[in-house]
Amino acid sequence: MDYIVKSESALFYECAYSCDHAFLLSLNAKKFFITDARYDIEAKEHLKHTTLVISKDLLQSVIELCQKEKIKTLCFDPKELNVFEFEKLSKHLELKGELNFSQKKRIIKQEAELKLIKEAVSVGKKCFEEFGEFISENGLGMSEKDLHYKACEIFTQRGKFGLSFSPIVAINANAAKAHASPSNERLKYGDLLLVDAGVVLNGYCSDRTRTALFSKDGICFDKEKTYFLNPKQQEVYEIVLQAQKEAIQFAKAGVSAKDIDNVAREVITKAGYGAFFSHSLGHGVGLDIHELPVLSSKSEDIIEEGMVFTIEPGIYLENEFGIRIEDMLVATKEGVLIL
Amino acid sequence: MDYIVKSESALFYECAYSCDHAFLLSLNAKKFFITDARYDIEAKEHLKHTTLVISKDLLQSVIELCQKEKIKTLCFDPKELNVFEFEKLSKHLELKGELNFSQKKRIIKQEAELKLIKEAVSVGKKCFEEFGEFISENGLGMSEKDLHYKACEIFTQRGKFGLSFSPIVAINANAAKAHASPSNERLKYGDLLLVDAGVVLNGYCSDRTRTALFSKDGICFDKEKTYFLNPKQQEVYEIVLQAQKEAIQFAKAGVSAKDIDNVAREVITKAGYGAFFSHSLGHGVGLDIHELPVLSSKSEDIIEEGMVFTIEPGIYLENEFGIRIEDMLVATKEGVLIL
Repeated sequence: MDYIVKSESALFYECAYSCDHAFLLSLNAKKFFITDARYDIEAKEHLKHTTLVISKDLLQSVIELCQKEKIKTLCFDPKELNVFEFEKLSKHLELKGELNFSQKKRIIKQEAELKLIKEAVSVGKKCFEEFGEFISENGLGMSEKDLHYKACEIFTQRGKFGLSFSPIVAINANAAKAHASPSNERLKYGDLLLVDAGVVLNGYCSDRTRTALFSKDGICFDKEKTYFLNPKQQEVYEIVLQAQKEAIQFAKAGVSAKDIDNVAREVITKAGYGAFFSHSLGHGVGLDIHELPVLSSKSEDIIEEGMVFTIEPGIYLENEFGIRIEDMLVATKEGVLIL
Repeated sequence: MDYIVKSESALFYECAYSCDHAFLLSLNAKKFFITDARYDIEAKEHLKHTTLVISKDLLQSVIELCQKEKIKTLCFDPKELNVFEFEKLSKHLELKGELNFSQKKRIIKQEAELKLIKEAVSVGKKCFEEFGEFISENGLGMSEKDLHYKACEIFTQRGKFGLSFSPIVAINANAAKAHASPSNERLKYGDLLLVDAGVVLNGYCSDRTRTALFSKDGICFDKEKTYFLNPKQQEVYEIVLQAQKEAIQFAKAGVSAKDIDNVAREVITKAGYGAFFSHSLGHGVGLDIHELPVLSSKSEDIIEEGMVFTIEPGIYLENEFGIRIEDMLVATKEGVLIL
């Protein structure tokens, strides 16, 4: 199959280098990386088993390479190419759309990839510990914005690693926004704090969420030791934790992703909070922070050995608080391992 | 004209809020913001003159809203919608592609926007000063990676502002990579250092590049006071500065962007370095770090009063060094003002 990709993670997966203005072509089992002169030297340094093509008109170069290699049909991901690119290439090539084909190639992680993912998760965990210690000592009176900046500092280990995404650091009612932006709200004793953050190491992402109480004793991101003074928060926390546990218990190679979502959703629905678990249960993680498989009520994915994904149920009560607990897991024949 | 947009800057321009999973529809002069439940509360807080629609299937909601508003034809940007979105919407709507139509709406900056851009540029300049002072005092022996992290700290003012892009901090031969990633190379006296960085303030970007000598006297980012000990660096610096000056002198409302590029390119070509000025002269700046107008040898844009863009000639000598000087300007009838 001859194909074209352009997303940074797909590029990196194919040839160990990526930048924000490039296409990779696989033609007759040979790979070509087409970018502009700004990336010339760096691409030469990093590309593996791939021919570099420097171009002032990337799409024109794609067309010319296909002609040279006598390629008439090219596979592409309809979510990756935009309409402009499609229309220009279509004049010279037959384009065959295959949804998520490059993500599908990465859905089962190889040993070497699992090793890198485990490293990222391990660093991410240590950053959670360091962030917890920092908050315990210095958090009182800090704003979400300041805490967010500190999270960036710690989760990058002062520039050593990348961030999987801009960390979410949300106090009380702000935690009810599943994707909250940091505000000027300041942390005080008795507050609930939600932290969702991850690192990027050798291209691979980690992802984790903890929701915990900040008190005179500090904060503890150990999900089993977490408790709240507010009885409603405690009740909701226990439901979310139970939902996560049952989903983790249920998950293994061979079951459908939809059914795993359903196990967690049932726990929350039976407890009366079904309407407040407003997102899907989880998502694959790898070079992209969100990739396949999808763990949702509509997913058609079947879990296989070596798939890596999050399980992250949540309950969000507007103007009150939100609770989410998230871990990354890898599927085995017998079950799932928490990373 | 009824239209659909999805890029974050286009969303922000239309309704003062954006997120990474949304469409904005303008139908019968009414605006609709369609996103998922994760952004519900935040969108409600920020949206202006726009109806919020929370949906589990954004494209389906777009179709239903168009049917409700009896819209049959929708304008879109072929560079904004992907093929998957286009194909799904096309089954129900006539889609009319108009390239860059939402960027074109923003190409001439209004008074209020100019004020915000000037604020961003002013903060960006102060960050350059602070970064220069930091390097002068602490730069010796620091790696590009450490300098890059420090640049992130200073240009965000420790989390207060956003970054227009990941800052470029490149020593000697690394500066020959127009878009260099930070390496482990360490700064020593006599080195050339290129810094390209900008801040985001109220959504608007700043952008600036300086190339300077690091010596026992420190570093100075004043482009008029910059000098190099290496005669070739000094020669190339003077050519780039002269190219920038002549382009700035030439630019004004009414001239074509292509001709401005040509003025700078001629200076560099006549000096014998034409082959080493490997990118276009500049780009518009606003909500996006790269927007219209395009200042390149192929551009068809004509400069108008109120357009904001960079002028940034550069010469890149592989394995030796690179020099770029960049400022942001606003066009007036008489000429351009350096911001």
